[in-house]
Amino acid sequence: MTDPTNDDRLADVLTRLQRLEDLDAIWRLCQRYRRHLDERDFAAYAQLFVEDGVWIGNLGSATGPAEIEQLLIRTLERHDDPAVRHLHLVDNPLIEVEGDRGTAETTWVYVTRDFSDNPVVSLIGHYRDQLVRTPDGWRFKRREAYLDFPFQVQDFRE
Amino acid sequence: MTDPTNDDRLADVLTRLQRLEDLDAIWRLCQRYRRHLDERDFAAYAQLFVEDGVWIGNLGSATGPAEIEQLLIRTLERHDDPAVRHLHLVDNPLIEVEGDRGTAETTWVYVTRDFSDNPVVSLIGHYRDQLVRTPDGWRFKRREAYLDFPFQVQDFRE
Amino acid sequence: MTDPTNDDRLADVLTRLQRLEDLDAIWRLCQRYRRHLDERDFAAYAQLFVEDGVWIGNLGSATGPAEIEQLLIRTLERHDDPAVRHLHLVDNPLIEVEGDRGTAETTWVYVTRDFSDNPVVSLIGHYRDQLVRTPDGWRFKRREAYLDFPFQVQDFRE
Repeated sequence: MTDPTNDDRLADVLTRLQRLEDLDAIWRLCQRYRRHLDERDFAAYAQLFVEDGVWIGNLGSATGPAEIEQLLIRTLERHDDPAVRHLHLVDNPLIEVEGDRGTAETTWVYVTRDFSDNPVVSLIGHYRDQLVRTPDGWRFKRREAYLDFPFQVQDFRE
Repeated sequence: MTDPTNDDRLADVLTRLQRLEDLDAIWRLCQRYRRHLDERDFAAYAQLFVEDGVWIGNLGSATGPAEIEQLLIRTLERHDDPAVRHLHLVDNPLIEVEGDRGTAETTWVYVTRDFSDNPVVSLIGHYRDQLVRTPDGWRFKRREAYLDFPFQVQDFRE
Repeated sequence: MTDPTNDDRLADVLTRLQRLEDLDAIWRLCQRYRRHLDERDFAAYAQLFVEDGVWIGNLGSATGPAEIEQLLIRTLERHDDPAVRHLHLVDNPLIEVEGDRGTAETTWVYVTRDFSDNPVVSLIGHYRDQLVRTPDGWRFKRREAYLDFPFQVQDFRE
């Protein structure tokens, strides 16, 4: 026999647990994106977007994994040798989840190398994301990449 | 009929779930503070403190939202134009929760602009926080802002 | 009488809750390491490794807390005065857990001081960790510290 009280409490627990897992999954998605970008794994990067997912930023804009991958191939240098790779830090997460939809805002810091191979904080900006739950986990529905240092006028909002 | 074993297990689950939610909520509070500070939304910033909440640091000290807001208005420049905004990174979280109280220590990195509008890591320090659960969520009971690079002698501890 | 349905659901909840707690505990371990390192508390740092735990990186390699502590004493300057301390940021976490084992990859940013005591982003690299659950919580089984800016050829992988 089912105990109604415990049923209700379990349902509440499952909702709350799901929310925490979703927040973690979205943060993880942001970090996988970061890694694919820095490793220049454009195919893996593009797979983090849903079929009608949009990337828009200073490189241009593209819709869907195939087009996004082409945009990256066109605009970003390859860094297959780890000795010449650049790096992003992705920080300052503010993530919200509502059912199968989510939003995220994060700060990105882009680090390059000077002539002595020392790190240089070259560019800083922020991402504004719309996320969606899919059978394969959370994916980007829309990622807006803003450049703040140096400042670039941008208004991608729909 | 209530199953005592499942009741006990559920009570344990709820305690553990609450702890994870509290850690998330406090981290989120730190990030909302960061955003309000960088957007110079002094009123929203001040509302993150309880009525007798204390902010103490290199800008001075203040108690309660109204006084904290006045301290910010007196000491910080406005950056209404996003093109001239500065930025904080808030990193290195170590958060503890005990019932309705919490503590947090985080590193803050303050980024300004050079004459070419490029990012400059200008100042770095750390926050030491005391937090309290309120009916509206977690709030700052006390935030100590230490400046470490360049180093400033400070001992705010009570 | 035990309700089988709720029993199953509770078992599922406990597994998922444990996973989130483990992810949090490992992230916390990384941050405690960071703090002990910057405070030059070599004994506390070394205690974060299991008995046969390995640290390997640009300082050399060592196995077990006693040897790891000696490696740090031999190779790192003490900074007992907080006015001369350096700082690490530990960012970009990607943590996985599988039962009593885990892996983590994080970015580390090492900040020193210039002649005016201003912060300098001096070195950047990444950690690759193997972690293990112990009766005292999660500990490092193996931490590989890679230096990426400036780039140093390293292949510590077993």
